[in-house]
Amino acid sequence: MLKKEQLYEGKAKKVYRTDNPDLYWIEYKDDATAFNGLKKGTIANKGELNNLISAYFFRLLAENGIESHFVEEKSEREMVVKSLQIIPVEVVVRNIAAGSLAKRLGLEEGTVMSRTVVENYYKSDELGDPLINSDHIRALNLATPEQMADIRAIALKVNEILRAHLAERELDLIDFKLEFGLHNGQLLLGDEISPDTCRFWDKNTKEKLDKDRFRRDLGNVEEAYKEVYRRLTGR
Amino acid sequence: MLKKEQLYEGKAKKVYRTDNPDLYWIEYKDDATAFNGLKKGTIANKGELNNLISAYFFRLLAENGIESHFVEEKSEREMVVKSLQIIPVEVVVRNIAAGSLAKRLGLEEGTVMSRTVVENYYKSDELGDPLINSDHIRALNLATPEQMADIRAIALKVNEILRAHLAERELDLIDFKLEFGLHNGQLLLGDEISPDTCRFWDKNTKEKLDKDRFRRDLGNVEEAYKEVYRRLTGR
Ligand SMILES: Nc1ncnc2c1ncn2[C@@H]1O[C@H](COP(=O)(O)OP(=O)(O)O)[C@@H](O)[C@H]1O
Ligand SMILES: Nc1ncnc2c1ncn2[C@@H]1O[C@H](COP(=O)(O)OP(=O)(O)O)[C@@H](O)[C@H]1O
Ligand SMILES: [Mg+2]
Ligand SMILES: [Mg+2]
Repeated sequence: MLKKEQLYEGKAKKVYRTDNPDLYWIEYKDDATAFNGLKKGTIANKGELNNLISAYFFRLLAENGIESHFVEEKSEREMVVKSLQIIPVEVVVRNIAAGSLAKRLGLEEGTVMSRTVVENYYKSDELGDPLINSDHIRALNLATPEQMADIRAIALKVNEILRAHLAERELDLIDFKLEFGLHNGQLLLGDEISPDTCRFWDKNTKEKLDKDRFRRDLGNVEEAYKEVYRRLTGR
Repeated sequence: MLKKEQLYEGKAKKVYRTDNPDLYWIEYKDDATAFNGLKKGTIANKGELNNLISAYFFRLLAENGIESHFVEEKSEREMVVKSLQIIPVEVVVRNIAAGSLAKRLGLEEGTVMSRTVVENYYKSDELGDPLINSDHIRALNLATPEQMADIRAIALKVNEILRAHLAERELDLIDFKLEFGLHNGQLLLGDEISPDTCRFWDKNTKEKLDKDRFRRDLGNVEEAYKEVYRRLTGR
């Protein structure tokens, strides 16, 4: 398979065509942004770690019956995926209050939610990824109610799989963001699953091992991403 | 019936006990606030107009099968209502994009929504009444899913009744906010329905005849509230 021209560049990844119209080539960058692009920086080796961690999670999910865009790794920071028409809805699953949820509901960070909370955000850099509800999604025609029901069910299943897997590695899964898309009409999990898009806390010390270290200038950002990789793979 | 001691004072109304534990006495104030209390002022005769307009709408809804807390007017700016345990969820119904919806979705004000949009906001002055979804409502135990389904159905029915009634009076119903509560276990529509809590635009000129005149310093605020009252009652 051949890597062809770049299709687009996002904040964390570049997407390329390949010689196969069904497949895209994704390159993970070290660039880090936060607060809707207001904060910018780089995290050494992030591209590599996020590529390897995402590949690891997509494989784990496949073994548990969740189909994703992931096909195979191409290098330390590159993977080949099925081409998606991304649905512009970011799906956030939350087990424990942190970040914008803690703020929105006036909860202390670390509060265990009495039920898992699923949120939908309109994927739009210009609008700052606002929270939306099912009526907004229908009015804007972002997805059908059937697609949103499937997405919710998959997101909750992903939560159970990741949560159990991480618990064995002494990591609490606080929350995470998923993106979905259509591949020849089929709904598939897309994008990435990494310390950029999840919150992981050490089960015992509650130390943050994710992008919050960058957002909040907590230091040891690269080390945190490496620690997640180490807990998953032993490497 | 006797007006007894004040129970609480909100931004637009005072609530008093009566000698009947099932009934409260509400006094409408001329005070006006906007932007979560940041902007403050008064609108001459607002208390009176909102009391009379709310009474008018609650009667109209009762004639159309929608039960509310409204019992009777007691004076130009007072009404007696059934006592409610207010559910801390503000329910907003939107036919046309304006205000925060236009901003949230990047729509021009005046855009007709392809479908009616119902939104839920967490009624909390400290948190700034944030938008929430059904999962937040369940996690915080603000209302049961059954109550929220009933509330949504009532809100949409209120929309149809008010919209048709206002159209005959050359007024477009852009959006409105409702509050609900429980009276001895029964779900009832509460609070007020007025130019403070609805957006009304003249059907032909699109002139705003509601609290946006106050929020945006458009002038002729009292006149707008009076014009709504006049269109409804001929007085
Ligand atoms: N399989 C896929 N097919 C097409 N686009 C994808 C796929 N997976 C992810 N994308 C998109 O690639 C873009 C680049 O990713 P990223 O750098 O994370 O972007 P963003 O700046 O939006 O976060 C995003 O728009 C993302 O939705
Ligand atoms: N029937 C009712 N029983 C009890 N409380 C009510 C009833 N109707 C409205 N309320 C409450 O009365 C309070 C005063 O109203 P208002 O001045 O509009 O308050 P706010 O500052 O919250 O907008 C509000 O908390 C409102 O929810
Ligand atoms: Mg991204
Ligand atoms: Mg009020």
